Amino acid sequence: MIAILKHGTTEAQQEHLIAWLRRMNVDVHISHGQEVTILGLIGDTSKVDMELLSSLEIVESVKRVSEPFKQVNRKFNPDDTVVAAGGVKIGGGHFAVIAGPCSVETEEQIIFCAQAVKDAGADILRGGAFKPRTSPYAFQGLKEDGIRLLLKAKEATGLPIITELMNIRDLELFAEVDIIQVGARNMQNFDLLRELGKTDKPILLKRGLANTLQELLMSAEYIMSSGNQQVILCERGIRTFETYTRNTLDLSAVPVLHELTHLPVVIDPSHATGKSRLVPPMAAAAVAAGADGIMVEVHNDPVHALCDGAQSLTPEQFAQLNQRIGKIREALQ
Amino acid sequence: MIAILKHGTTEAQQEHLIAWLRRMNVDVHISHGQEVTILGLIGDTSKVDMELLSSLEIVESVKRVSEPFKQVNRKFNPDDTVVAAGGVKIGGGHFAVIAGPCSVETEEQIIFCAQAVKDAGADILRGGAFKPRTSPYAFQGLKEDGIRLLLKAKEATGLPIITELMNIRDLELFAEVDIIQVGARNMQNFDLLRELGKTDKPILLKRGLANTLQELLMSAEYIMSSGNQQVILCERGIRTFETYTRNTLDLSAVPVLHELTHLPVVIDPSHATGKSRLVPPMAAAAVAAGADGIMVEVHNDPVHALCDGAQSLTPEQFAQLNQRIGKIREALQ
Amino acid sequence: MIAILKHGTTEAQQEHLIAWLRRMNVDVHISHGQEVTILGLIGDTSKVDMELLSSLEIVESVKRVSEPFKQVNRKFNPDDTVVAAGGVKIGGGHFAVIAGPCSVETEEQIIFCAQAVKDAGADILRGGAFKPRTSPYAFQGLKEDGIRLLLKAKEATGLPIITELMNIRDLELFAEVDIIQVGARNMQNFDLLRELGKTDKPILLKRGLANTLQELLMSAEYIMSSGNQQVILCERGIRTFETYTRNTLDLSAVPVLHELTHLPVVIDPSHATGKSRLVPPMAAAAVAAGADGIMVEVHNDPVHALCDGAQSLTPEQFAQLNQRIGKIREALQ
Amino acid sequence: MIAILKHGTTEAQQEHLIAWLRRMNVDVHISHGQEVTILGLIGDTSKVDMELLSSLEIVESVKRVSEPFKQVNRKFNPDDTVVAAGGVKIGGGHFAVIAGPCSVETEEQIIFCAQAVKDAGADILRGGAFKPRTSPYAFQGLKEDGIRLLLKAKEATGLPIITELMNIRDLELFAEVDIIQVGARNMQNFDLLRELGKTDKPILLKRGLANTLQELLMSAEYIMSSGNQQVILCERGIRTFETYTRNTLDLSAVPVLHELTHLPVVIDPSHATGKSRLVPPMAAAAVAAGADGIMVEVHNDPVHALCDGAQSLTPEQFAQLNQRIGKIREALQ
Repeated sequence: MIAILKHGTTEAQQEHLIAWLRRMNVDVHISHGQEVTILGLIGDTSKVDMELLSSLEIVESVKRVSEPFKQVNRKFNPDDTVVAAGGVKIGGGHFAVIAGPCSVETEEQIIFCAQAVKDAGADILRGGAFKPRTSPYAFQGLKEDGIRLLLKAKEATGLPIITELMNIRDLELFAEVDIIQVGARNMQNFDLLRELGKTDKPILLKRGLANTLQELLMSAEYIMSSGNQQVILCERGIRTFETYTRNTLDLSAVPVLHELTHLPVVIDPSHATGKSRLVPPMAAAAVAAGADGIMVEVHNDPVHALCDGAQSLTPEQFAQLNQRIGKIREALQ
Repeated sequence: MIAILKHGTTEAQQEHLIAWLRRMNVDVHISHGQEVTILGLIGDTSKVDMELLSSLEIVESVKRVSEPFKQVNRKFNPDDTVVAAGGVKIGGGHFAVIAGPCSVETEEQIIFCAQAVKDAGADILRGGAFKPRTSPYAFQGLKEDGIRLLLKAKEATGLPIITELMNIRDLELFAEVDIIQVGARNMQNFDLLRELGKTDKPILLKRGLANTLQELLMSAEYIMSSGNQQVILCERGIRTFETYTRNTLDLSAVPVLHELTHLPVVIDPSHATGKSRLVPPMAAAAVAAGADGIMVEVHNDPVHALCDGAQSLTPEQFAQLNQRIGKIREALQ
Repeated sequence: MIAILKHGTTEAQQEHLIAWLRRMNVDVHISHGQEVTILGLIGDTSKVDMELLSSLEIVESVKRVSEPFKQVNRKFNPDDTVVAAGGVKIGGGHFAVIAGPCSVETEEQIIFCAQAVKDAGADILRGGAFKPRTSPYAFQGLKEDGIRLLLKAKEATGLPIITELMNIRDLELFAEVDIIQVGARNMQNFDLLRELGKTDKPILLKRGLANTLQELLMSAEYIMSSGNQQVILCERGIRTFETYTRNTLDLSAVPVLHELTHLPVVIDPSHATGKSRLVPPMAAAAVAAGADGIMVEVHNDPVHALCDGAQSLTPEQFAQLNQRIGKIREALQ
Repeated sequence: MIAILKHGTTEAQQEHLIAWLRRMNVDVHISHGQEVTILGLIGDTSKVDMELLSSLEIVESVKRVSEPFKQVNRKFNPDDTVVAAGGVKIGGGHFAVIAGPCSVETEEQIIFCAQAVKDAGADILRGGAFKPRTSPYAFQGLKEDGIRLLLKAKEATGLPIITELMNIRDLELFAEVDIIQVGARNMQNFDLLRELGKTDKPILLKRGLANTLQELLMSAEYIMSSGNQQVILCERGIRTFETYTRNTLDLSAVPVLHELTHLPVVIDPSHATGKSRLVPPMAAAAVAAGADGIMVEVHNDPVHALCDGAQSLTPEQFAQLNQRIGKIREALQ
């Protein structure tokens, strides 16, 4: 870490600051320039509060030379992490297709959907039981019953399941769930992350709507530093000024995250775009960019087509997409 | 609520949709135009999932005529809510100044700060005990001990206290706390909001970094619809492309929120700007815009000035600011 | 266009408004609901100023049913536009690779680069002669000389050339240029667009850093409505809060623009990401998303490697990327 | 300027880079740390292309110690610039109120408006003659005739006038105009800025929708470095994710710009918020934040109230606002 001191800083102030830094077991290398003085902080700087340091009156700016994340950092763990869930592998060359309806509604619906996505080539079944909703008056999911129905669909099809947990209090309901999803709104619910870090379940961590990639990695660090190494990162669109798509899918996240971390990266084009007709091209693009998996919404068209969202694919569209993805993956070998 | 149907929608599809809407006890008024058919939804449309409706294949777009929030809505509650906490009132003409250090550090520090801000005109003492931090390795606050020290400062000065709660599990520690703060990262932690709605404590709800004002109001609705009417809204900067300030203070939030809701609105210029020299002008601007209070960081300069952030005012600067605010408030009478 | 009137609008106000609309030759269909009155505007509403209409005191909101753009609109021109420039076609199944250095520097450099990108499979040579720079003190390009050198490179290699025009005054210098580029900062320089609409040159129009896709289409409409049908749209990243990449590449622009317009869509991953190692994955993703071309920076490594930006590929990296793109295009057939 | 080199940079690469920097007459001070090597660039670094430097393969990052702007920089010109236009002064303690209709429509209208705003306390008359419009089909202003009518209003009332210039070709029409406005979309039309820098007219430069404050200052530097010292900066809202207001007024711009530059800063709350009822509180806030002036839209209510936008104040509302502003200014003395 490098701290650039302001012009005019007194020697007493500098010594004061250096003493403070050394108390945190950081070694300080001083370089006096003509216009500025630069402090090089050497050693374990993870305890130095960068924001606090840079806000000091005498500090012009602070620059990290090494990243603030460690366990998620590819520099320290060069090999790709392969997350295994119910017999399916993600990362390190293993590509996984996660598919299913937005919400679990009925036993008939979820079993129908599970079978349909399995037949069309999905590896893992998704379905919401606990639903974070902007309005307290909107449908909040079937909760416990939703989990129960997902487990029936798992039993019926053999597909591993992923579903979102919103409250650590509900953890025991997730005993048979294969991957626990942390939603975008909870990406910085640090207590939740720490508790999930104490479990042995794979965690799919969604990027928050307005969070940087570094913040996503810091949140993954919360899980890993608590003991759980099975983390999957998921980009699902960020909030920008563009309103034609629900969010803006930041696909550069794939190569950037692959560079910075060894964790697998999955793309969710359904939530990012909010429009089913944009899902196949963006899923194909995700594969070409090097994603380790995609997560798409597929609905149970025949049952009650009317009420299914335009962001969901039909099973037929999903099967076509899978073929397309297979071809792109072959081309990229 | 108005739903505009796409050109080419069949009559069967329309009837299907109308039947579905009527099952939710919504009356539907149909208007056939030349190019489009418009459905007017009449009655209690709060159960209609607007996002789902607008994503249907046959729906061009959906437009709310009435807001999705009720209890926070000024239309239904025209009189300003006055929140009372430890003898201090906020809203409805009552202006409150909340001040104190970023974090509680030691007994000496927090009592010194409390006395200093009281002498300089503060009405309420702030101080962080549980600190949400991007990095798992950063200081996370004194937690229980921090609350204990805040209560000592309250006892010593008589100032009511406000501090952040991150996990509902810690609620009982807040029994003597006067106002519970929900931080920006937890604005859409819906389970937390609902639980706080069951308490009788005033809640200060901070706007999330990338949340719209409508989403802020929907989160307040979660608290109010669970039974707690004592909600204070707080704007503390949103995330934009501008990097000179830490965030961009959206001061228009003051008149907009006053128009839409009866709840008091407080501005936090310290976190919004991240620079102490910008705090006085933005605090003055907040008052001129009609805010019901401000929340500013004031540090204990004499004790260890070096380590206090540049976003904090000294007690002297804070006292000057309070005088300035008093003059502006008089001028606006 | 649909205008929703506010509750409580008087009949006189409504008549006043309707009369005003009819004076613009728009027919108005009125629908009185219980809570709102809706006006359906029928006929050519392109002259109705939507922003003005929606800002009227009695108007709750306005909703376009049809898009405000006409000549660029795929609804009115369903067939893909194929732009031809110097023997190269773009759009309608024709894929073009545009490559070259950021700036033209010397004759030796641009001819070396032109030959290198041609050998590696480029269809069109890019190179900046007039450079828009944030600072008045930064290098602004070789200007006239730059164009002259580009023409020498064109002569030497046979590659058509594209370069940016910043001022209509310089138009005659572009007589032999094959495609004129309008930079992101000039996307809403409406006078410039109109003047370029009077030429017979293909125009590559870059999306502004903070412009919506609809605004991009409206700017293309300026060119087309002035008489020039040869427009290529280019997405080159938008400004968001994420700072790891220079901008955020909005790749959803490809399928969205293909849906809304018949014009070809080209992606510039070099400027979007600002980092050469992110260019190949994002170029591959652009192809998979269905782009009609890519525009990438390739530098003249052997000559003065030091000063070439990290956003540029070497000729070798560019050749590899071209092979990869070829395979993806085959897979998508 | 400080350049941090990557770990593993060879000595040959360093020497290559240093030689390149010295060729630009920059002195280089080298500091070898344990993990990184830091180059301190000393002397006139304005010719060093920071973006290019930071994109070099061996450079980790570059940090400016001094700002890239000079003539606009308060460090080099500590005294406030006072811009004088038609007898009215702006800046250095002189506060100016600019008011008038969005567009000039008829002689009757503009003279009525001019008289009304003068009576209500305006110092300068605004009115659009050349109107930048997103759509080529929307009203583009009365152009030459608009300027002519503005001059009649100036003659009738004695108020100096400000109006927007979009194309340098039209400059001679502006001979009697007192202040030339550069609109947000032209903030980085560098050729236009340079040409205006050669005139002796005061220029009001609006911040672009997605431009940082530093970019605004660099654009002002274009004007000043071409010889024109009479520049007024104007914040008019930036583009964010919030949709309730048209744009988000970034009021922190006032104290930030006052810190960085000696140029006067004016706030336009009408365009920023897009809603007349938000204009008075935000104008008051601008004054409290220390702005040197405000620019507000006031319409000619009696003539054709219907068609005036809700972002405009009536003359009565404007008069009240002026009284309020006067009181706040007194309070802040």
